[in-house]
Amino acid sequence: MRLHGYFRSGAAYRVRIALNLKGTSVEHAFRHLRKGEQRAPDYLALNPQGLVPTLELGDGTKLTQSLAIIEWLDETHPTPPLLPTDPLRRARVRAFAFAIACDIHPVQNLRVIAAVRELGGEEAAQAWAKRVNAEGLAACEKLIAGEPGPFCFGDRPTLADICLVPQLGNARRFGVDVAAYPRLLEAEAACKALPAFADAAPEKQGDAE
Amino acid sequence: MRLHGYFRSGAAYRVRIALNLKGTSVEHAFRHLRKGEQRAPDYLALNPQGLVPTLELGDGTKLTQSLAIIEWLDETHPTPPLLPTDPLRRARVRAFAFAIACDIHPVQNLRVIAAVRELGGEEAAQAWAKRVNAEGLAACEKLIAGEPGPFCFGDRPTLADICLVPQLGNARRFGVDVAAYPRLLEAEAACKALPAFADAAPEKQGDAE
Repeated sequence: MRLHGYFRSGAAYRVRIALNLKGTSVEHAFRHLRKGEQRAPDYLALNPQGLVPTLELGDGTKLTQSLAIIEWLDETHPTPPLLPTDPLRRARVRAFAFAIACDIHPVQNLRVIAAVRELGGEEAAQAWAKRVNAEGLAACEKLIAGEPGPFCFGDRPTLADICLVPQLGNARRFGVDVAAYPRLLEAEAACKALPAFADAAPEKQGDAE
Repeated sequence: MRLHGYFRSGAAYRVRIALNLKGTSVEHAFRHLRKGEQRAPDYLALNPQGLVPTLELGDGTKLTQSLAIIEWLDETHPTPPLLPTDPLRRARVRAFAFAIACDIHPVQNLRVIAAVRELGGEEAAQAWAKRVNAEGLAACEKLIAGEPGPFCFGDRPTLADICLVPQLGNARRFGVDVAAYPRLLEAEAACKALPAFADAAPEKQGDAE
């Protein structure tokens, strides 16, 4: 399998964590988003959205969208599970993951920040990204307020933690005071103690700058 | 069950379609997004993100995030299935759904459009929403270019169609020339012929204006 990613992409980071948790080794191909390599014709043929990640399987099959890739991975490599067994618990984990993957991450990605910068300048772009992260993570903190730790949902990492750790990294880059989210930080600390998370970190990737 | 929604919310519309496809009847509670009713304290207690929809179950359990609700519904009410059986096919359907639910819908919702309007005025806000819809739907058209019709993925509606139909409605409201997406329009026409989709349309809801 080959994963097309970018060290700083939160979506590619999620897939790296999931692959590591499953003990699946992949070849890495890097697409430099700031240089626009995701819009090169050869990459658009793999991924019509021009986004990372794309996972290419051995037979040439191409999978896109980080959460679709992770659900596929969990269905085809069931151990360790990335979702609970009970449908209601699964719904809670997925809701947390989507609160990040739908309502925070895409609203502060490179493409959107560039558009905001064009309208309002650099200061407006930074303020936008900071606000989206701060408001979104504040809601996430509430979503797991009643859940046992140390991870987002109990004693093992799930899809929720896989989405949380990259987003907290983004939030810090945009200057958000993450100390306001003690429960999220507890989950992050538990994750970062695991090699699957630590090895997936942006600064450990071959294209890190 | 009680669904907290808003007639024009694309996310609530998805859940209405899914509930109808499953033949599940629910009570509807309306939260007027333009009047900010989703930020009322009683609603934030149900849904810390202050977004619609929220599905309240008979025992008081609250489920949030449209796609998490629909996955839960599909797991607990398996007939008719909203996802294929094969993991690779499931990944394709989910990738299409996320291409809309992560990369189009949240970047053109009321909250974001209001923020863009503040930065660049009404014209900039409308142009933003139009561009996000047009670029996103163009990618979606390519994602299913090789798939059999009439629905997005073959001869029955899936999660992909459930996300597509509300988004095409938004795109039209923002002035996108949807004729550029013939394959998407084919799927939409097949969906709209089904009462489950037709009855879920915004204009049929009790809070429609």
